[in-house]
Amino acid sequence: MKRTHTCGELTLKNIDQDVILQGWVTKVRKMGAMNFIDLRDRYGITQLVIDESISLENVKSEYVLEVHGKVIERKSKNLELLTGEIEIKVANLILINKSELTPFEIKDGIESQEDTRLTYRYLDLRRPEMQNNLLVRSKMNHVIRNFFIEDNFIEIETPIFGKSTPEGARDFLVPSRLNAGKFYALPQSPQLYKQLFMISGLDRYFQIVKCFRDEDLRIDRQPEFTQLDMEMSFADAQDVMNTIEALIKKVIFEIKGIEIKESIQKITWKESMEKYGNDKPDLRFGFEIQTLNEIFKETQVPLFSNLEDKSIRAICVDSLLSKKELEDLTEVAKQNSVNILAFAKYDLNEWSGSVGSKLSDNEKESIIKTFNIQKESTVLFIVEEYYKATQAMGSIRNRIAKVLNLLDPEVMKLAWIVDFPLFEFSEEENRYVAAHHPFTMPADQSLENFDTNKQEALAKAYDIVLNGFEIGGGSQRITDSTIQQRMFDAVGLTKEQIETNFGWFINSYKYGAPYHAGCALGLDRICMLLTGSENIREVIAFPKNSSGIDPMTNAPDTVTTQQLDELNIKLK
Amino acid sequence: MKRTHTCGELTLKNIDQDVILQGWVTKVRKMGAMNFIDLRDRYGITQLVIDESISLENVKSEYVLEVHGKVIERKSKNLELLTGEIEIKVANLILINKSELTPFEIKDGIESQEDTRLTYRYLDLRRPEMQNNLLVRSKMNHVIRNFFIEDNFIEIETPIFGKSTPEGARDFLVPSRLNAGKFYALPQSPQLYKQLFMISGLDRYFQIVKCFRDEDLRIDRQPEFTQLDMEMSFADAQDVMNTIEALIKKVIFEIKGIEIKESIQKITWKESMEKYGNDKPDLRFGFEIQTLNEIFKETQVPLFSNLEDKSIRAICVDSLLSKKELEDLTEVAKQNSVNILAFAKYDLNEWSGSVGSKLSDNEKESIIKTFNIQKESTVLFIVEEYYKATQAMGSIRNRIAKVLNLLDPEVMKLAWIVDFPLFEFSEEENRYVAAHHPFTMPADQSLENFDTNKQEALAKAYDIVLNGFEIGGGSQRITDSTIQQRMFDAVGLTKEQIETNFGWFINSYKYGAPYHAGCALGLDRICMLLTGSENIREVIAFPKNSSGIDPMTNAPDTVTTQQLDELNIKLK
Repeated sequence: MKRTHTCGELTLKNIDQDVILQGWVTKVRKMGAMNFIDLRDRYGITQLVIDESISLENVKSEYVLEVHGKVIERKSKNLELLTGEIEIKVANLILINKSELTPFEIKDGIESQEDTRLTYRYLDLRRPEMQNNLLVRSKMNHVIRNFFIEDNFIEIETPIFGKSTPEGARDFLVPSRLNAGKFYALPQSPQLYKQLFMISGLDRYFQIVKCFRDEDLRIDRQPEFTQLDMEMSFADAQDVMNTIEALIKKVIFEIKGIEIKESIQKITWKESMEKYGNDKPDLRFGFEIQTLNEIFKETQVPLFSNLEDKSIRAICVDSLLSKKELEDLTEVAKQNSVNILAFAKYDLNEWSGSVGSKLSDNEKESIIKTFNIQKESTVLFIVEEYYKATQAMGSIRNRIAKVLNLLDPEVMKLAWIVDFPLFEFSEEENRYVAAHHPFTMPADQSLENFDTNKQEALAKAYDIVLNGFEIGGGSQRITDSTIQQRMFDAVGLTKEQIETNFGWFINSYKYGAPYHAGCALGLDRICMLLTGSENIREVIAFPKNSSGIDPMTNAPDTVTTQQLDELNIKLK
Repeated sequence: MKRTHTCGELTLKNIDQDVILQGWVTKVRKMGAMNFIDLRDRYGITQLVIDESISLENVKSEYVLEVHGKVIERKSKNLELLTGEIEIKVANLILINKSELTPFEIKDGIESQEDTRLTYRYLDLRRPEMQNNLLVRSKMNHVIRNFFIEDNFIEIETPIFGKSTPEGARDFLVPSRLNAGKFYALPQSPQLYKQLFMISGLDRYFQIVKCFRDEDLRIDRQPEFTQLDMEMSFADAQDVMNTIEALIKKVIFEIKGIEIKESIQKITWKESMEKYGNDKPDLRFGFEIQTLNEIFKETQVPLFSNLEDKSIRAICVDSLLSKKELEDLTEVAKQNSVNILAFAKYDLNEWSGSVGSKLSDNEKESIIKTFNIQKESTVLFIVEEYYKATQAMGSIRNRIAKVLNLLDPEVMKLAWIVDFPLFEFSEEENRYVAAHHPFTMPADQSLENFDTNKQEALAKAYDIVLNGFEIGGGSQRITDSTIQQRMFDAVGLTKEQIETNFGWFINSYKYGAPYHAGCALGLDRICMLLTGSENIREVIAFPKNSSGIDPMTNAPDTVTTQQLDELNIKLK
């Protein structure tokens, strides 16, 4: 390499050395007879000092330079930079390439429209904060792979060209030219393949792999996403959870320097819903949801009377919320189809608010006791059917934390959610479908009657949650053909559907399968959390926008009739 | 984990320990009152000894067992196995799962039809040689990634959903549901993205990535394949070749234990064609091709008279080839559109063969001198237009090595091929197209006139060759908008085509690009060579067969009309 050093490594130790640096012009400053340039590359910034014998007429921001010079000590040191104690006295300056004026400044914290940033993504990625995001991602991947390789896992690639199956989300399809009228499907996950690896006796598999789901795009969803996929033989759910727990702690330690010593707490799905209103609780803050029906059994408060099947779900915030804040929270309730968000404020003397003024002394006392109120507080109430009230309160709980600025990205709070329902009822299809996927082992206590009591059946499934995001999940798999058949029956797959779509898969379990379990982690999301980014697009080099479009290349785009002809398809 | 050890680790050091093993039954043998079982997992085989108190009625090959027992010393030791000095005296035997009779035996070197193996791939992958192939692949990937991470490269993922471009091979397309009538294209390589990373200043990029080409399938081609992709800024072709050379040597050392100390030799494209008849010479054997026109300038041999523009291309094999071998080689000549393969045999006394008997003494002497003949030999001759004769002789050269059993998979012979032509003439399109891709920098000596003298223009491109296979290649890239425009003009892309397909890409080079170069390696092929496999399917977990079909899942397959409707397409 022609350069002797990067722009991020020269210090006082290098004084008097002759060096060659190459990089981008960040800033040009004139001070008296001297010119100063901040030269930038991925590794840092080094200050160049250039006397008037060298013309800078042709040097502007983002030009690419090569400079030859000597390392000298700086007069005014910048101790925030590793290179801040030295500068380069430039003897020779060579212009490698020019730059037009960039559409936005190459610096952190710009306020351009996201589509502009995506159109010029190659310039957006020149900004240090974006480079850091990609560096963190690369390091995360490396830590993950080392972890598994050291633990005897094999990395195995699974096909991108697979077969479309009716369960799960919508598949992306690829028309086959050589097999006219037929289509490959892109994998939603390598689930079936990794289970086959266990039947093959490969014992321990992992892969960092792209997956694909053709779902309607939401703010934080990409048509292609990356997951860490793993599976272990002769392992049960707890073995896998132990492995993933050690992994995620290692990743957090290596990237954030945070050492988590305690075990990750396990919360049952039911308890998570009860306390936090969802199955991905953010544990950076409290505000647990309580049921207050008992307190208001003989109440005079109209809202809490004549409950019938309804629940009074409430949380207590340890501050007096403003009118504006309460309006904001009421809006959240409405987004969750709940019209009334009642509240009571308590300033340690008096109770006020839509409910506060109507409370009996007993009720006041019970509320103080229930929430262990010790300072000025606001109690929020929803009276609705249990799950509706609970889910709405879960959203409100999260919003409160945001409003009160409690979401510190430097705090990492993990939880396992366990004892998931085995099925969920699909209103759309009017049947029970697998909550996780149809290869998930029922819990021991559900093994006998999971197919007759679907409502109550629990699964040997587990999710891992970080700061309110589900970052992964997995399960013990069904390794017994009879149980697998009962499972398919339970989700209403016909014999023909099973044969066509899973026949080959069920068949494989007839040849000696070990018991096995596995897990998958969403790496886009984990990287988002590790970097404190707003959304997953910030940790993806070239993401699609919310319409599934890459504004830089304009993909997807029209193709020629000849291309379609060759694929034996036409537009409708 | 319930098991205390794998089936591959117990030795005399573990004598008297109580252990739990889990694995597959490979063999059951009865010897007197004792039964013996070979229990197998990915890590090895351990012998179980079972007395008659435990019934083996229910134990057959490929059943999955858990055994509890004590490690004891074996009487008849098997020193070829790491575990061959011990056995497990079984106290308790638990049946984990049964197995039906497998469609082929789980052992190395089976002779099943490949489609049967692919249909039951999960059983095929249970065979130790296939497990070894996947283990080598996993290790290779790990060595590669560590190499790059240690050298400051960043691993960055590039999109699978890209844009179709007219240059290069045929794209696989993915219909977009959200953008009706439009299609994503799967990447043939991340070429453009990685060049943009350099413009972003990411400096050093690598990725192990799936790529896709919708070409007609040949015996050794898959619709999806995996490459190591890398690019370096402020680096020229030699810098990249140094990096890749260090990498490939490290991979070979880590996997094969072979240390290659000498530099990899560089051969120009022209010299490679001249000596070996192709641009991926197998250097495990000699048999270099010579041009003998000079020797036969005044010949009486009819075949070598009246040559006009033809060349006499010949190689010398240091043995007397049999009639059958010669017929086989003539067949290879015919496959290369050459009808006559003349030969002369020399047994150190006499010359014989179709040409041998007609040679003059001078000619005999010159041939002996040219080829430095020191033992019984056969000289083969083709008289044809230079490239036709050369290419045919190249194929014959390779076939001879196969026939004479010179292709030792344990020998690793590397070469760089350099000074490639910048263009090649496409008969189909009746124009010059980029030989590599249209972002390849012309060689210094061609910079001035590459677009006017396309025939002679050379490229700053390089291929790396291992044992007669091109395992990778790369180039210095064009980083100057003017040269890029001349290049597009030279391959006849219209302004509109450029704008539609590459406008955004050319535009990116206006914002300060460093000079950069890169390389990509074909990992399927490298792994095939490292494992001594017959073809790349042996090192891919779930490959497609030669019709692009996975006989296990039956992908690609028909999809429902609803799926097509949603994608806004229909079958033609």
